[in-house]
Amino acid sequence: MLAGHRTWVFDRKPVIVSTGTVGGPFEANGMLSEDFDLLHADLWLAQDSYEDAHKVLFEEACQKAMEKGGIQKDHVQFLLGGDLINQITPTSFACRTLGAPYLGLFGACSTSMEGLALGAFIVNGKGADYLLTGASSHNAAVEKQFRYPTEYGGQKPPTAQWTVTGAGAALLSDQGEGPRVTSATIGRVVDMGMTDPFNMGGAMAPAAVDTIEAHFTDRNIDPSYYDLIVTGDLGKIGRDVSLDLFKKHGTPIQEEQYQDCGLMIYREGQPVLSGASGAGCSATVVYGHLLNRMRKGEFKRMLVAATGALLSPLSFQQGETIPCIAHAVSIEYGEDDTK
Amino acid sequence: MLAGHRTWVFDRKPVIVSTGTVGGPFEANGMLSEDFDLLHADLWLAQDSYEDAHKVLFEEACQKAMEKGGIQKDHVQFLLGGDLINQITPTSFACRTLGAPYLGLFGACSTSMEGLALGAFIVNGKGADYLLTGASSHNAAVEKQFRYPTEYGGQKPPTAQWTVTGAGAALLSDQGEGPRVTSATIGRVVDMGMTDPFNMGGAMAPAAVDTIEAHFTDRNIDPSYYDLIVTGDLGKIGRDVSLDLFKKHGTPIQEEQYQDCGLMIYREGQPVLSGASGAGCSATVVYGHLLNRMRKGEFKRMLVAATGALLSPLSFQQGETIPCIAHAVSIEYGEDDTK
Repeated sequence: MLAGHRTWVFDRKPVIVSTGTVGGPFEANGMLSEDFDLLHADLWLAQDSYEDAHKVLFEEACQKAMEKGGIQKDHVQFLLGGDLINQITPTSFACRTLGAPYLGLFGACSTSMEGLALGAFIVNGKGADYLLTGASSHNAAVEKQFRYPTEYGGQKPPTAQWTVTGAGAALLSDQGEGPRVTSATIGRVVDMGMTDPFNMGGAMAPAAVDTIEAHFTDRNIDPSYYDLIVTGDLGKIGRDVSLDLFKKHGTPIQEEQYQDCGLMIYREGQPVLSGASGAGCSATVVYGHLLNRMRKGEFKRMLVAATGALLSPLSFQQGETIPCIAHAVSIEYGEDDTK
Repeated sequence: MLAGHRTWVFDRKPVIVSTGTVGGPFEANGMLSEDFDLLHADLWLAQDSYEDAHKVLFEEACQKAMEKGGIQKDHVQFLLGGDLINQITPTSFACRTLGAPYLGLFGACSTSMEGLALGAFIVNGKGADYLLTGASSHNAAVEKQFRYPTEYGGQKPPTAQWTVTGAGAALLSDQGEGPRVTSATIGRVVDMGMTDPFNMGGAMAPAAVDTIEAHFTDRNIDPSYYDLIVTGDLGKIGRDVSLDLFKKHGTPIQEEQYQDCGLMIYREGQPVLSGASGAGCSATVVYGHLLNRMRKGEFKRMLVAATGALLSPLSFQQGETIPCIAHAVSIEYGEDDTK
């Protein structure tokens, strides 16, 4: 089960039976609108607060996953999830509605893969027949908390990223058909001393590199094993930094096979500066777009390294640097995956 | 592995090899001062902020656990932990120092047992040789964030509880000698419509009852199986509410076998109103006092149901009710534990 120091290899290869992805108006105008199960024209989702809208996004993603998987609420044994809001209230409040026994996670924007890693471990170890895992973010709720209310109209530097309004959830089981979770590498906290909350990609890049390289070492494979290696939300700046680091370390990752969810979701011309971010970024892009492409046979093996910046508004105000983390999960589909 | 709907039974019975507990000045004057590995006379722990002091508490608890277990930092494969502060920065920043691959959790004051449940699952499934799990809180950091800065001198009603300044961590392994983790029941979100953040015990009691009763049903045992059933931080009010609920449901829990960490840690006369609370409450009382008593042979089987209130200051301001949760873990020591 344990490979190397911090990688789990799942011998029973838990199946992603189905997924649910929900987005907001900005995502509806984006590059991947076709891959969402549900898109809202109203950023408020007809709720009284952005936090309530955030909660509804996650509820709907979980409901869509259950609906598409043909599983009733009562058969979901556990829900593992989290978000960026203080005390992850949108996720916890959604779990009040959903009713499943709940394990709250906090990994900032790495939460999607923290949940998939732990969820796959639980299913692999016969700890659940069915469980849900997911993550979400809401642009206005997150901006208000971490930076300025959007109504304030504050300007941003070109290194800044745009928080996705969206939720993605996956229904995992040890039975059924679909892409399979084959291994997971858990991240360490990496802090290179950066302090600029408007350059998260740059801060997170070393954490992504650390985890991805540990994955290859622990599994004794090289990057060519994967058709696609995708990071969570490094954006343009962070992706460039990470490519430089791979080069410096002699890790043979090809530019073409190395992509970033934060650079996929929006369209050229949308004012997202360095790219997308938020706990809902990798959750919606992986559980929507990328798994759809996998199911179509476009590629067979993918490593997803979701990246997270573990700061808070208070830690920034107190002059702290930004500690970062990345968790990587491999998903394989459509071939004899004996490795 | 899975018993009933939401209980895991650990066939390999992961061992709590060692623990570390650290407290502040108020805890040093409390009832259980003898059971702490380290007590600080200075609430600031010589740091510049309460949040930094909070971080140091957790670092020290983990270091103590490793030291007592004779395990070097590099041999700890994973660290599962969390706290109450926004974006759980004290725990994340501590993990920057500790260096272990890190899974951040948020279960408010139930985090101690969320971590022990997941940690035991991972060790039981051969996902780690050694891992650390723990939780912490700091009175002044938590009061400032959730209520008022203590310097403000706000009055509190008798239903309020006192947040523990303390951290508790446990080193888990599938080898070695010590109390063993035998099963865990994961909580659902239970919300009875209470809105008063100064009566957390009353809000959390139904969640504790829900999980404890599910534990008996799932494992097909009755309360007499345990020498001690201990809740996290219900306090006087919450304990009374939960006893009423058990009585109403016909669950035969005896008053003597049913205790609360929040009623153990402080001394008569300390101004803690309804009792103690905070993520560090159950973590320090269980990993210090209760495991010490177990090792002395005072009792053999204990069920710990750590309770958490999943609100945020913002959700309260927005008029939301308080969703609550409890995770229960059974720890056994010193007998043929065949059940």
